[in-house]
Amino acid sequence: MKGSTEGKTITCKAAVAWEPHKLSIEDVEVAPPKANEVRIKITHTALCHTDLLTLSGKDAEGKFPCILGHEGAGIVESVGEGVTEVKSGDHVIPCYQAECRECKFCKSGKTNLCGKVRAATGQGVMLLDGKPRFSAKGKPIYHYMGTSTFSQYTVVHDVSVAKINPKAPLDKVCLFGCGVTTGRGAVLNTAKVEPGSTVAIFGLGTVGLAACEAAKKAAGAKRVIGVDIQPAKYPLAQKFGATEFVNPKDHEKPIQQVLVDMTDGGVDYSFECVGKVELMRAALEACIKGWGTSVIVGVAESGAEVSTRPFMLITGRTWKGTAFGGYKSRTDVPKLIEQYLNGEIRIEEYITHRLSLPEINEAVELMKRVECLRCVISME
Amino acid sequence: MKGSTEGKTITCKAAVAWEPHKLSIEDVEVAPPKANEVRIKITHTALCHTDLLTLSGKDAEGKFPCILGHEGAGIVESVGEGVTEVKSGDHVIPCYQAECRECKFCKSGKTNLCGKVRAATGQGVMLLDGKPRFSAKGKPIYHYMGTSTFSQYTVVHDVSVAKINPKAPLDKVCLFGCGVTTGRGAVLNTAKVEPGSTVAIFGLGTVGLAACEAAKKAAGAKRVIGVDIQPAKYPLAQKFGATEFVNPKDHEKPIQQVLVDMTDGGVDYSFECVGKVELMRAALEACIKGWGTSVIVGVAESGAEVSTRPFMLITGRTWKGTAFGGYKSRTDVPKLIEQYLNGEIRIEEYITHRLSLPEINEAVELMKRVECLRCVISME
Repeated sequence: MKGSTEGKTITCKAAVAWEPHKLSIEDVEVAPPKANEVRIKITHTALCHTDLLTLSGKDAEGKFPCILGHEGAGIVESVGEGVTEVKSGDHVIPCYQAECRECKFCKSGKTNLCGKVRAATGQGVMLLDGKPRFSAKGKPIYHYMGTSTFSQYTVVHDVSVAKINPKAPLDKVCLFGCGVTTGRGAVLNTAKVEPGSTVAIFGLGTVGLAACEAAKKAAGAKRVIGVDIQPAKYPLAQKFGATEFVNPKDHEKPIQQVLVDMTDGGVDYSFECVGKVELMRAALEACIKGWGTSVIVGVAESGAEVSTRPFMLITGRTWKGTAFGGYKSRTDVPKLIEQYLNGEIRIEEYITHRLSLPEINEAVELMKRVECLRCVISME
Repeated sequence: MKGSTEGKTITCKAAVAWEPHKLSIEDVEVAPPKANEVRIKITHTALCHTDLLTLSGKDAEGKFPCILGHEGAGIVESVGEGVTEVKSGDHVIPCYQAECRECKFCKSGKTNLCGKVRAATGQGVMLLDGKPRFSAKGKPIYHYMGTSTFSQYTVVHDVSVAKINPKAPLDKVCLFGCGVTTGRGAVLNTAKVEPGSTVAIFGLGTVGLAACEAAKKAAGAKRVIGVDIQPAKYPLAQKFGATEFVNPKDHEKPIQQVLVDMTDGGVDYSFECVGKVELMRAALEACIKGWGTSVIVGVAESGAEVSTRPFMLITGRTWKGTAFGGYKSRTDVPKLIEQYLNGEIRIEEYITHRLSLPEINEAVELMKRVECLRCVISME
């Protein structure tokens, strides 16, 4: 059965960032998907701090005007020529990390960082013709991270679409589009935390909580030390697996020294889930010599640089980073959602607020408040 | 058979660095070894650039007056109480990296960085009483790196002594005390270079050449790109396994970009064997996204810091470092020397000059010249 909108431009509501700092609800035209593209009716999207970073104008790749959003879920409306793995009506998560299964990165067996569409999505356009599929008020509107989920309809590359179990509630599993997947994968795929390990997690937002859960419950870490300047976050983090907490504001010593002292030389693994370069350094330097591994998970402001004394690396520490938690999007997101359906991964607790699309600026403000983890926007 | 010097202070010749920049040949008193200490008659020592770094006053740990040198070989003269694994007459390499086999680092199975005597050797003293065993002109002279091989006799901790095959020529295998071991191990133990890999090696001195040999011949790398501003070094590097060369001075683009362009996105592994933080950054940024791994091998000046954009790590690069190439000193150095005796590891080619102890300041000058790789000093 073909939908009545197939092949036609759809006019729908979207939150457009004409320039940094403000989202405007606009009527946008969404062109039909071209070859190897998929048009998705977004039912729900959450906001992530990376959306806010780009909205602030501090993301090196941010290109305006654009439609932000990369933690969404929806239903395929129509597909372009050559799309074989999804069809109209399929439930999907549009993923900012593509998986083409053909490029040297996908074939390497060593990384989830597919190279196929990256150059285009980094420019806010589609690979086929280098143009966006959105327009409003007669002007082209750029895509964002290859997803643009702050629109009732979006067009994405087929290699970026994870087909999921239709039993999964879209108003919840949209979170697998970024935060939960990233925090979990940083622990399980990038660091490969081992049973009995001592772990420090900097930043107890959604990504950090997902890292806590993965470290304690999936990996079997012995100590999971949550590091956050907001003690209000500790009770929930405890529920997610953190075994103890450190508030850097309670100490005169640098936080890395506090952690080294608490752990007889340093932690086995640390995760920076905030996006501040000073914390990335502290997370590395909190690791034990010989084998301590620190993973950068947060995205820093444009132009910011991390630094340390080379001695920290010479003496056996390893510095890594993760994008999308090392998960291959089309292959692994459907599996993660099955794990959620089986009760192995929590989701509900992250959703502290729900709003509708016209209220999205309110959601942006909520995200700056300590009591908000994720605000899910209903797009209908 | 007990030697006539056992239990007595030995007066011998040593090169003393009273302060930065100059070595003076002096009569030094070398106290007998105390419990768990070994006194070694050094027959040969080479100079390493780390000795020169400390001599320049730019090493954070350099403590004067001291006896430098950490690439030596010799024969045990006598041992203190409780020493069971070596005895008078054994041929040995004093190693700056200890291996006690009892501390949590040694037992971890994850690192060669023994923790037992590190604090003492970092302070230039012996663990037992926090004092040095050297004195000259009535003043205590500090140890260096736990080895102090620029003396005809030295006292080291028993956990720092590798007992070797007496058939091995001491005037050559002294090089296993640092450079050759470090470069080889960086490739085989720290990076674990795989067959078919593309590798870049920054700096074609002894450490870099040992890395070339290990990458090409032991690990089976396909491309081994030598990076050095001295083309005079290329012919020997080719003999050691380098397959191509880049002179950063030949390019306007940053060297990392040159390497990325040469290798369709970057190298699989890179090694910084110079000790300059700008090159450490370049080596990391020359790696391919997704899995590229860079290993810091060179020792930087005190206070220098490495930096990069966190994006380089987020996109899948790994930054590591190595000390003594990840080799466990007492266990692995004897095995490396067997490999040398079996023809698997080259040594002779590194030895470009030979001098005697009174000529050691000449050796320091030689080390600054491009044609000098290693100058072996005969101590007798």
